[in-house]
Amino acid sequence: MSRLLIKNAKALVGTHAPGVAIARGAEMARMPQVGNGWLLVENGRIAALGGMETLPAIGSDVTVIDATGRYVLPGWCDPHTHTVFAAPREEEFVDKINGLSYQEIAARGGGILNSARKLREMDEEALYKQAHLRLEEMMRQGTVAVEIKSGYGLTVESELKMLRVAKRLKDSMPLQVKTTLLAAHALPPEYKEDRTAYIDLICETLIPQVAAEGLADFVDVFCETNYFTVAEMERVLETGQRHDLRGKVHVNQFTSIGGVQAAVKHGALSVDHLEVMAPEDIDALVGHDTVPTLLPSCSFFLRIPYGPARQLMERGLPVALATDHNPGSTPSGNMNLVLSLACIQLRMLPEEAISAMTLNSAAAMDLSAELGSLTVGKRASLIITREVPSLAYLPYAFGSDHIDTVLIDGTVVRAGTLLA
Amino acid sequence: MSRLLIKNAKALVGTHAPGVAIARGAEMARMPQVGNGWLLVENGRIAALGGMETLPAIGSDVTVIDATGRYVLPGWCDPHTHTVFAAPREEEFVDKINGLSYQEIAARGGGILNSARKLREMDEEALYKQAHLRLEEMMRQGTVAVEIKSGYGLTVESELKMLRVAKRLKDSMPLQVKTTLLAAHALPPEYKEDRTAYIDLICETLIPQVAAEGLADFVDVFCETNYFTVAEMERVLETGQRHDLRGKVHVNQFTSIGGVQAAVKHGALSVDHLEVMAPEDIDALVGHDTVPTLLPSCSFFLRIPYGPARQLMERGLPVALATDHNPGSTPSGNMNLVLSLACIQLRMLPEEAISAMTLNSAAAMDLSAELGSLTVGKRASLIITREVPSLAYLPYAFGSDHIDTVLIDGTVVRAGTLLA
Repeated sequence: MSRLLIKNAKALVGTHAPGVAIARGAEMARMPQVGNGWLLVENGRIAALGGMETLPAIGSDVTVIDATGRYVLPGWCDPHTHTVFAAPREEEFVDKINGLSYQEIAARGGGILNSARKLREMDEEALYKQAHLRLEEMMRQGTVAVEIKSGYGLTVESELKMLRVAKRLKDSMPLQVKTTLLAAHALPPEYKEDRTAYIDLICETLIPQVAAEGLADFVDVFCETNYFTVAEMERVLETGQRHDLRGKVHVNQFTSIGGVQAAVKHGALSVDHLEVMAPEDIDALVGHDTVPTLLPSCSFFLRIPYGPARQLMERGLPVALATDHNPGSTPSGNMNLVLSLACIQLRMLPEEAISAMTLNSAAAMDLSAELGSLTVGKRASLIITREVPSLAYLPYAFGSDHIDTVLIDGTVVRAGTLLA
Repeated sequence: MSRLLIKNAKALVGTHAPGVAIARGAEMARMPQVGNGWLLVENGRIAALGGMETLPAIGSDVTVIDATGRYVLPGWCDPHTHTVFAAPREEEFVDKINGLSYQEIAARGGGILNSARKLREMDEEALYKQAHLRLEEMMRQGTVAVEIKSGYGLTVESELKMLRVAKRLKDSMPLQVKTTLLAAHALPPEYKEDRTAYIDLICETLIPQVAAEGLADFVDVFCETNYFTVAEMERVLETGQRHDLRGKVHVNQFTSIGGVQAAVKHGALSVDHLEVMAPEDIDALVGHDTVPTLLPSCSFFLRIPYGPARQLMERGLPVALATDHNPGSTPSGNMNLVLSLACIQLRMLPEEAISAMTLNSAAAMDLSAELGSLTVGKRASLIITREVPSLAYLPYAFGSDHIDTVLIDGTVVRAGTLLA
């Protein structure tokens, strides 16, 4: 049996009781902590934890990490990414500086369709290797679970290729991976004159095949002006439900067109983006389980409004946070920057933001039973910080790397000075 | 003789001709580069460079770095920081999230006066050790020269203490350090009823003593509503000039009160902040040598307007960039994030921003002869990137660390995979 003991932690953060699956509204600021704590890992799971005054005799067959002055936190869960892609798009970034809008770049054949062209040409092995490097970097940055979407294929063959790459990453890498079919990411040019035929293809061919092969956990639609309508999203969500694929959808990034209401009605696991929310869109979330998921790195990079985190929390809703890592609007998979952006721009308290990146983001990818808190029985996937004076210092000192060690399922994936 | 050869660089970036001391306006986008290049370091200086087709026989007593796929850039020069301070102030960051303004926090005894209280209580050795750690981090992030201000002492004794710490950092660390007397950073509470007495103290005691002991290169004033008036700044600048201390001043952060005009009139080396610029403030800079220096990390953290980089460049002015590293408004000394913010928020092209962080920021700290470009004779203080597809990728992928190796005066201060 492999055993590891972390002792003398300045605090164990997020020590939620078993069964606590999400934090809503004001609960997000109440972050349970054990000061001066120890945590025992056995066979990749959290076996026990407590304050140092309760440390039992552990025996000698244990690797010991002395975390004096360091915090132990649940690893980051990133419930919205597009991490499988063929190439960065920094040339469009320069186009934007030169004055073109996101929509103008899309109209010139840039944007999602640019990524789709490049992805269609790239073989599975090359896609896998690139995404592997990205996920390795994200793990070093503290991410222990990631959702990965298709959506740069936009043909049956290429969407399946993307999901097979994501599945291979899931099977070969230590972090938890959830996969999502996002064939309805943009209308492929070949369907320009017949939108319905593309939705037919998704509902009649792709969803059944993806479900049959077990290639995806969720289904997603970019429900937005100039992308897909609410009615189109509803058809995809209904078809997904019949194949046990819950919805996790892009809504209200640029306009409010009723996507939130429709997603809630169809029992979506999460509604993501939400930069543009009318009061009735927030109303629609109250009393339902759909998790509003904000993507502040996308707002930062595109200079669009930030999601209304405080308004959502004031209504008792459980906000989750994700990176949106993708080559167009968010070329960063760094959840530590999301933490800083959440505090600086969304005006979330450090504890609220940490809840949103751990407990709630685990919930937003259906991993509540496995991850999101330091709870006995959950995976020992966690971050040990460097010496920092307080939790608030993590988002505050936004240009520094605060992570010393990252464990996934009890295995070190980033060794800092503590293990040197 | 110690010799080092970097070969096969994807490009040597910023290979300005000798004597090019600054880039103005449209010149900032014209970044001279040598593709597929080599660069020879001898005794800490750039001895020669060129394209690989010109590589001469070098001999065998040379350390060779193969930089295939990597860019070589001049190291970052950071011409505006407050890196000597006693303690972070993340508790005020939380106050701000809870709704207090920067001015309200200052009115409660927070802000600069909070830092001053803590600094007065801390001994020189403790201040030195903390600042040393910060500068070590900044060097790993590619910074090879830094300006450090006093301004948290606000008594003769404590201002001198800060400058002695800065001097000791300069003497003991590899990077270039310039020091600035910023006694006029905030009015100390003990002078609340007699502002003139404090300006007298600065002009009659501090400046002469600092100049006599060689503790500072420059003099600075926070010329701003509720801080120091234009007339007070002018008196400090005039006194500084008589003691060979040029001005590098804080102006137009929150309000436009004529500080730019006065600074230009007194031949200030730089005017820094500039978040709030009236048309006549920009007019005042045209045709003069004073370098407008923008601090986008401060705007980011305080959520105040960003400086008008494009307007300044359109008028043919040479924009410089700095971090403003300090515990209140900018708890980051990371120039790589400044690069991303410059492109994302200031709408500078990658080449323009790099000019502003190298050639122009060296000029803004009077180091043009030593640093700021890859030019024969200058210090071999440079960055070798990781493998990246283009220069634009550096600001674009804003959440990643793109640096492999950092050299200062030809000595490795960060060893990446190239030297592993």
